[in-house]
Order: sequence, then C-alpha cells, then structure tokens
Amino acid sequence: MLQPIDWRNVQFADGFLGDRVRVNRQATIPAVWRHTKETGRADVFKLRWHEGEQPRPHQFWDSDLAKWIEAAAYDLAIQPNPETEGIIDELVADMAAAQMPDGYLNSFYQQVCPDKRWTNLRDMHELYCAGHLMEGAVAYFQATGKREFLDVMCRYADCIDRTFGTEPGKLPGYPGHEELELALVKLHAATGEDRYGKLATYFVTQRGQQPFYFEEEAVRRGEKPVSSPHGNCEYAQAHLPAREQTTVEGHSVRACYFYAGMADVARLNGDAGLADACRALWHNLTRRRMYVTGGIGSSFQGERFTVDYDLPNETSYAETCAQIALVFFASRMLRLETKGEYADVMELALYNSVLSGVSLDGERIFYVNPHAYFPKGYRFDPRGPRIVGVRPEWHGCACCPSNLARLFASLGGYLYGTDEDRLYIHLYAGSTGTCTWAGSESRFTVDTGYPFTGEIRIRLDEVPTTAAKLCLRIPGWAHSYDIRINGAEANGMIENGYLVLDQVWQPGDEIELTLPLAVEMIESHPAVRHNVGRVALKRGPLVYCLESADNGSDLNQLHLGKQPFFTVKEQEIAGLTVPTIHASGLRDSSGAWEDELYRPTGHSHSSTVQLVAIPYFMWANRGDGEMLIWLRHA
Amino acid sequence: MLQPIDWRNVQFADGFLGDRVRVNRQATIPAVWRHTKETGRADVFKLRWHEGEQPRPHQFWDSDLAKWIEAAAYDLAIQPNPETEGIIDELVADMAAAQMPDGYLNSFYQQVCPDKRWTNLRDMHELYCAGHLMEGAVAYFQATGKREFLDVMCRYADCIDRTFGTEPGKLPGYPGHEELELALVKLHAATGEDRYGKLATYFVTQRGQQPFYFEEEAVRRGEKPVSSPHGNCEYAQAHLPAREQTTVEGHSVRACYFYAGMADVARLNGDAGLADACRALWHNLTRRRMYVTGGIGSSFQGERFTVDYDLPNETSYAETCAQIALVFFASRMLRLETKGEYADVMELALYNSVLSGVSLDGERIFYVNPHAYFPKGYRFDPRGPRIVGVRPEWHGCACCPSNLARLFASLGGYLYGTDEDRLYIHLYAGSTGTCTWAGSESRFTVDTGYPFTGEIRIRLDEVPTTAAKLCLRIPGWAHSYDIRINGAEANGMIENGYLVLDQVWQPGDEIELTLPLAVEMIESHPAVRHNVGRVALKRGPLVYCLESADNGSDLNQLHLGKQPFFTVKEQEIAGLTVPTIHASGLRDSSGAWEDELYRPTGHSHSSTVQLVAIPYFMWANRGDGEMLIWLRHA
Repeated sequence: MLQPIDWRNVQFADGFLGDRVRVNRQATIPAVWRHTKETGRADVFKLRWHEGEQPRPHQFWDSDLAKWIEAAAYDLAIQPNPETEGIIDELVADMAAAQMPDGYLNSFYQQVCPDKRWTNLRDMHELYCAGHLMEGAVAYFQATGKREFLDVMCRYADCIDRTFGTEPGKLPGYPGHEELELALVKLHAATGEDRYGKLATYFVTQRGQQPFYFEEEAVRRGEKPVSSPHGNCEYAQAHLPAREQTTVEGHSVRACYFYAGMADVARLNGDAGLADACRALWHNLTRRRMYVTGGIGSSFQGERFTVDYDLPNETSYAETCAQIALVFFASRMLRLETKGEYADVMELALYNSVLSGVSLDGERIFYVNPHAYFPKGYRFDPRGPRIVGVRPEWHGCACCPSNLARLFASLGGYLYGTDEDRLYIHLYAGSTGTCTWAGSESRFTVDTGYPFTGEIRIRLDEVPTTAAKLCLRIPGWAHSYDIRINGAEANGMIENGYLVLDQVWQPGDEIELTLPLAVEMIESHPAVRHNVGRVALKRGPLVYCLESADNGSDLNQLHLGKQPFFTVKEQEIAGLTVPTIHASGLRDSSGAWEDELYRPTGHSHSSTVQLVAIPYFMWANRGDGEMLIWLRHA
Repeated sequence: MLQPIDWRNVQFADGFLGDRVRVNRQATIPAVWRHTKETGRADVFKLRWHEGEQPRPHQFWDSDLAKWIEAAAYDLAIQPNPETEGIIDELVADMAAAQMPDGYLNSFYQQVCPDKRWTNLRDMHELYCAGHLMEGAVAYFQATGKREFLDVMCRYADCIDRTFGTEPGKLPGYPGHEELELALVKLHAATGEDRYGKLATYFVTQRGQQPFYFEEEAVRRGEKPVSSPHGNCEYAQAHLPAREQTTVEGHSVRACYFYAGMADVARLNGDAGLADACRALWHNLTRRRMYVTGGIGSSFQGERFTVDYDLPNETSYAETCAQIALVFFASRMLRLETKGEYADVMELALYNSVLSGVSLDGERIFYVNPHAYFPKGYRFDPRGPRIVGVRPEWHGCACCPSNLARLFASLGGYLYGTDEDRLYIHLYAGSTGTCTWAGSESRFTVDTGYPFTGEIRIRLDEVPTTAAKLCLRIPGWAHSYDIRINGAEANGMIENGYLVLDQVWQPGDEIELTLPLAVEMIESHPAVRHNVGRVALKRGPLVYCLESADNGSDLNQLHLGKQPFFTVKEQEIAGLTVPTIHASGLRDSSGAWEDELYRPTGHSHSSTVQLVAIPYFMWANRGDGEMLIWLRHA
C-alpha cells in the first residue's frame, strides 16, 4: 500500500513549488501569527476571559490557533526556528494547564458556556476544533519529538471516545463540521493506538444514520428539529450514511474533509464498500461539480455544492479552504489506490485554485475565488463583501489563511510515495527526497522548471540494491511524453496513469521525462450553461486567465478567432517571471454604436488584437481589475 | 401641448390589448380584491386594531388598498359595476370616519404609533401612501363624479401642505418613496387648485437639497445619519437636487415614480431646466440601464439600478412595478414633448416586461422578472424566494398586483392624445376613441391585429370641420411603412417619430398604415458583458424567448447558425394564439462527452434543430421550465 514520503524527508530547491513554500515560510506563517496574536486568538487558552470583555472568544478560535501551530511545526522541521518552537511550547503549556481533569479542552465552551458542552454538535464546531488541535499535536510531535501536546490531545481524544458512540450511556453524535475523522486517523498513526482508528471509523459510519442526531439534539435544546442556520442535514453530509452517498452535497469544506476521512477509514479497515462510496463521490465531484481550476462549492449560500453542471463564474464561491480540502481528499484517494487521476486533480487544484487563494507576496488571502471578475457589478450585490478583487489581509472568519499556511508548510509530503519496490512521483518539483525504496535507504533529486517547462530530470543518488520500479505520473492532459535514461530512449509501461520503469538502478542514474507543454483550448461539457461558446486556455496543469491589466477592460468583448495562433512568452508579472500566452484575437468594436443599447445585427465590427493570458493563480496581484477565464471562441 | 385622451373616452375592441384589459377586469381586479380582503387590508381604515392582534397593520397597506380602489374605479367607468361601487363607497366612508380633524389619514400610524407621525419619511412610506390614496380619489371622482373621497384627500393634501415646506415652522422633508409628486399633479388637475401643483413642485425641488433631510431626521430619531435599511440617499434619489441628476440611481420604482413627477412638474411650470434633467435621466435609463424588454432595476440588492451596461439576465430583478413606473415616466415625457421615442419605450415595456408580470389568466403575478431562467440553479441562491419560474398568487409585499390592475384598467388613457389640430396615435390597438380634435367633437375607430400583425386600419367616424393633422407613430424598429388613405397611396411628413397626415377629413375616411413585421436579430452594446455573442429575437415591439417546453432543456446548448432562416407560425400557447418564431438552429451535442467535464476543443458536434420562440410576456405559463432571451449566435 502506498506510503507517502513525509514532508520531513523532502527538501525543496528553488522553483515553482519551492518558491511558494519559501514565501509561505517567510511571509504567510509570520503574517498569520501576527493576526492570530492581534485578534486575541493566541491567548485564548490562558482562560482569562470574563463575561463582557472584548474580544469574546469565538467557537472557531481553537481551530485557527491549532492550524497555525500545525503550519509552524511543519516548517520548523525543515527550517529550525527556536523562536517559533518557544512560542508553541508556551501555547502547549497553556493548553495543558487549561485542560480539564477529564481531558476536555475547548476554550470557547470552557470560558463562555461551560454548562453547554456537547449540546450543539451541529453548529458549534466543538469536535472540529478538537480535530484541528489533534492535527497540530501530531505535526508538532513529528517535527520535534516533543510529546506534551500529543499527550494532551490523546487525553482529549480519550474523553471524546468515552463520550461518543452507540453504546448505552454514550451520545450517538458526530461532528457538525467534519475534520476530526481524518485527525483521529493521524493520531492513530502517530501513537499506534487502535482506539483512535476505531473512533474515526465510528464517526464516519455513524454519520447520517437515522434517527438524525442533529435533529434529536435540536429537540433536546428545545428547538425545531430541522431549523438550522444552514438548512437540513445535507448541508453537513449527514443526510445519508456514508456508504450510501453518491453525490457531493452541502458545505464543500465540510464535505471534502469528510470524504478525506472516509477514504482514510476505508484504507485503514480495508472497507471495500466505503471505498466504493469514496469513488462515487470523487466521480460526481470531478465530473459534474468542479471548476476548471479545481475550485469547488459554487454557491455563496451555504458555501456549498449545488447541482450537476451548475458552475457560474462571476459568482463562484470556491472557498480557498474547499480547494485545500479537495487536495486532502485527492491525496487520500491516491493512498487508497494509486491512480494518476487523483494526483492530476490534486495538482490541478494546488496550482490553480489553491494558489489563487494567496497573493504572490504571501501576505494576503482570498476567502472566495471568483472565476470571472468585473469590479463594477458587485457594488450592489449582497455577496459583495466576500467577492472582492484584491485579497484582504485577514478575515473575520479566518479559516483560510492558516489552512494555506499548513498546506504549503507540509507540501513536501504530497510529492512522493513508496509501495514496496515502487517509488512514485506524483508532483514534479525541484527537490530532494529520501525514503526506503525496495527495502533500501534511497535518495533522489528532481530538477525541473515544471510546470513552466516540461523537462523533468530525476537523478538517483542512492538506489535500491535490487531491481525496483520508478513510477512517474504522466498527467492526464499530456498527449505524449518522452522518456530517457542516462540519455538513451527508454521504455516503460503505463499503469494507472504512471509510467513504470522497472530495472536495477545505479547511483547517479539520470532519468529525463519530457512532457509537451502546448497551449490548449479547453471546452466544458455543454450542460455547463455558463461556458457555452467559450474556451479556457490551459498549458500543462496551469489554467490561464485574462486580466484587464494586460488586455484593457471589457474582457467579454474579446474573443479568439476560429483558428487562433498562440505564442508563449516569458514575462514578469507582479514580480514573478512566468510563461504568458499571447493569442491572436478580436475585440468587438463599440465605436460604431452611436449611443444605442440594442440594435439589429449586421453593423458590428471587430478589431484584431493580441490577447495576453497569465496563469489564473496569479490574478489580482496588480490592483482591482477585471479577470476572465472562459474566453469567447467563434 | 399634448392632452391625453383619457381612459373614459376609449373603448377597447377584442384584440391584443383589449383582451388583456378584459382579463384584468374579469380576473385580476377580483383576485386582488379577494387577497386584499383576506389579508386584512380592506378593513384597515376601520381602525379596529389593538396592540397584540394579528394581522398587525402594515405601513404599505393603505397604498395596496388605494391602488385596488384606483383600478376598480377606472374599470367601473368603462363597465359599470354597482357592487364594486358599493364596496368603494364603504371604504371611502371608513376613510372619512378615520380621518383626523387636521386631515391626517394613515391607518398604520393612527393605529400602531400615533405619536410617531412624520418622524421617518425615509423608510415608512407615509407620504407614499398619501399619494396612492390621492390617485385613487381622483380616479373614483373621475369615474363616478362622487366627491367624498376627493374631498377627504384634499383635506389630507392640505394637512401635508401645512406640514411640509421650507417656511419657518414647517418640515423641509419629502417622501422616502416618491409617488406623492405625481399624485398631487393629478389632484391639481382634478380640482383646479394651484396649491397642489405648488406642493408637488416643492417636493420635486426640495429633494436632494443639503443638508440632507433624511440624515437630519435620522439624527432626531437618535440614529446614525447615514445608517438606513437601504443605504445612502442615492437609494431614494435624494443624493442631488433633481435638476442636477443625470444618471438613474437607486430603487427603480422610486426612481421612475420620481422622474414621472419631475416631468409633470416641468410641464406644469414650463421649467426648461427640469425638463433637461428629465431628458438626461431618460437618456441614461434607456441607453445604458434597460433590459431589451424594457425591464429596469437589475439588482436584487436594493431593487435598484446599478451601473451602466450592468444587465445580468439570470439574476435580473426587473420588478413588475418598476416597468409600470417606466410606463408612467414615458407617458409623462411624451406629454412634455411629443416624441415617438417615448411611446416606443412605453410600448416596449408594456408589451414585454410589464405584461410578463401577470399570467395569461390574470390570476398570478411576478414580482421579479428574470431575463433567463434555469430552475435548478436557484435552490441554493439567497435570492431564491423571489426568483421563481411560476407566478405566485400573491406577495407579502403586494405592490405589484394592484399596480398591474390599475395600469390595465386605465390603459385606454395611454393610446391617444390631442394637441390643438393634431390627433396623435401612440399605441395601436383595436378601439374607439372620442375627443376634441381641432375644436370639433371627433370619433375614430382603430382596427388591427397589432402587434401580431402590422396592418392598422383607422376609420374616422366624426371629423373636424377644418383641416387637421392625424399623427401616427412610426415605431423606431420599423424600417419602412406603407400608408394609404381610402385605398390610395398617401404622403406625410415624419415629425419626431410620427407620420403627420394633414388634410381636411371626411367622415368614413379610412387610413391604412402597414408596418412590416420582420423577425429581427437584436444585439446589445458590447459593453453589456452578459449578452456578448448572443442575439435576441424581436418581431415588431415583441421580444421573443425560448422555453424548454418547446425546445427541451439546456437552452444554452442551442444556437442560431450564421445565416438563420426564420418562419412565423400561428400557434396556440397556453390558450393564446400568437405568432411564434421558428428558426433553423443547432444544439451542442453532449453525446460524445463520455463522462468528462472539461476537454480540449475539436471533438464537439452539433445537431440541427428547429428552434421555437414565443413572445417573452407569455413565458412561465406552462410550468416551471427554462427560459432564455439571449440566444447564442455563431
């Protein structure tokens, strides 16, 4: 079974991902900490708050702090940072002191309403906060070997284990916002304690069982069973038992955290039925409900999935956290079964709709990621405050910043995996990895300008003593590839999207994989009514967009001709040098309109223009201008 | 100066408009009365409510009741109805009894918060209700000759006159929701009392003067000056003095009621500066901010105008009342200066976006008029409850039903006008009109299938004794026309959009005007980003749309070929026989997609299909299906 090479064993070189990891280290993690402190989140476990004081602790705060700890922990394992380690040690001491004798630990409930513990799992994020704290504890343990935080969280997990379950005297509940499931699987892996895996299994399988826990719980609070700030059980994926779910529904972050936990539990238990449900959900998500960038959750209302093929561009919600959650889901599916398609989507989301969430300087974060943006229209839109064309520095609901920080800090862990005699390369990025491959301690170095160039060189520094398989992902978008070993043409079989090179390797062997990066016009299924008659430009895994900064305003007046000609030029955009796409296009002329709004066809003219497209993830780094992905195509 | 021939002097025959007037009489007016009674609105002036009782009187209710009275009054002048007259007499008696000694009359304030009178003009619709009651009173007086209601409202107008103004001791305020301005002009015309015209002038010219009344008033209530449920002064057109306004802003119903009042006051006072402001607003509205159907107010948020060229189709608000208000504005502009362009827009709105507000059976009303509709998408949309694909029977905020009822009941008054020796025909509908034309009592009969056919026959039954001008509107969309008098080709000059036939007329003279009704593909200004690459089909004044009932679902998969071929067929749609447009088109095939969501272009196929388009006003009379106006055009 595939075993990821964890982030501690991967060192990035400069390059596309390495640079993003460095920016994350130098800018995003410190910025998140600054805001975490300034807003009072950092002190929340000191339990000093008294009724009436501002700021009042919030039910999300534990998770915000936990995700920053997790991010910082990942990073200090790569780049030691005693100051950060000291900060975390203090925070852990606060938590240890705050923890109740039975293991319970939640700064909101302990300070604001201690008598209400476990009374509103549906809305109050209590188990969600627990999950994030556990992930932080596991990361800090793995990064430093220090056990105190892990021990605190094991005591909390034991408290949760004593509280929830179908046995008499326990509450048959589950998290309103999933996350704890995958955290417990991590805790299980870190501690070797089976009971945490069993508790994860319980939460995954109990969800959606009738009678609905959220309804019973609401009645106990004296509320109507179905009245909720967010509608029915479907919003929280609690409408059906996990193995009966076939379409991705409800809040998209909750959903993908849950599906990631489902895939973990399916793997842990070898549960074929649950794995089938994961595949059905994956299929529905990627074939019906995902933007071309890997963005998900199209509706502002409920931050949720809607219906098949409903992917509006100007009002796309596509919360940054949702795409991060999709990366989690994809990476778990890849671990469940090593198919390149999962890595394809992981890469798609990561390089496009996740990266679009953060400014190039790492200081500003999008909560919402539009897929077309026209600044003028939003002034009167009720969704205005969230759909913006400049990334804010911080958000009242601050889930996305620390989520980005922890993903990029642990990014090395998503690149590689081993499975007995196989070494898998999922993502191509300049880096060095060490692992056990076919029973031998091995080391390899990847050198590439990918995804800006298609040449990937892999040098095997230390190799297995026996024949072993090197498995290189051939992305779904690649129509061909070229493979050489030490300069000579090589052969390999494609298995599940991976090119398998099976031989006895020598230290110093060089494998060269070339993926042809052509500009492609992508169309969407004709049932996506928003994209008909339009194409997206893609080059390799990167989706491109047009900005008014390069093309003037009124981007919808532009269109590609029937047989457009594309050239790729290196260009500096907002400080980053990237390949831009230049295309022969046309602009509808408004010159001959003479102050009319409507008129019979037949009098319109177009002028020839050069269109310039930049990678989507870079949009909105040059002020508040228009952006368009789906370009008209005659 | 143009003098409309009022509704009492126009008798509709069967035909397009005549049928709609009949349905209004037989279905809409009774339905509105039924709901008005059932919801407690009809009894509100009995002042029987006590705190705690349900239903609690609402600040809009006086206006809802007043508009029903106005509608019923118009109709009973054409079709006597003693029962209705008796109902109104009772209501008037209630009002007379309820009126306070100083003339004040407002059922909400008198019952719910008598001490709060005139303290919140901005939000509370107090002066708006007064205006609607005055319009009702004028209509009932004109219909029946009975003065009691008119006298009650004169006393109320006098009370308002004593209360508001810039003189010391008066409040320098004006209505939060305009409407009183045009009502006072009607009261002035009905009574001959100059002070009502002066009061209208005051309200028009005081609006938007600094310091802003709504802000001062808010401070007196102990509120922040700019905090309002609907934002700043612009929402209520109170951001600038009337003659400085050049763009249509804010709540679209408020706006057009105000502009109608402005045009009335400009005409009344011969105020050239104010007339210029009206022209500027008209220009901005019709050239920048109006849907192809005459719909206005594109944004749900604030039910308002937004910015130039911002006309989204799926989320168009286009409140039925807004289009009715546009008809009011257009008819006042036409009275201010007799230019065919005003009648063109009046006709456009009336035949398309006003008529779309009511079901063909007259029983159901749209509040919001989408310009594209895909039922699946809205389930998760915050605007869902208002954007619907089936007209509701009633609305909590019930301004539209009675507004439609009073417009159609008085529709005869919008067709014709005289100006010394000129008789103008603005709208072509089977009907008989009587008027004073060039000093003589005259009578004429129009016989036409317009707008379904382009042949219009006008028979002059009684004619002036001297030479006189018959002025026939040649619509802006007509590329040519044919004119005959008693079968012989005739000549006339086009002046301001009207064909002027100047001669001595004989009783029995027959004028035949033929307007060529060709199917036209209409494009919108390329700055309307929502319509690029698309066309609307229009035939004469009627905008057409596609419905899934005729074309299958996924309407955005359909497109016209480069040189489409159109045929017009008579067809019965939801009980009404109309010319439908059949066009050669294509449907994107989803057959070859093999479960992908995105793929490189070059593999797509289309199949030839016959597209069927029906008049837009008829949409949503056959269940909850898709609708599309703007059709892709290769």
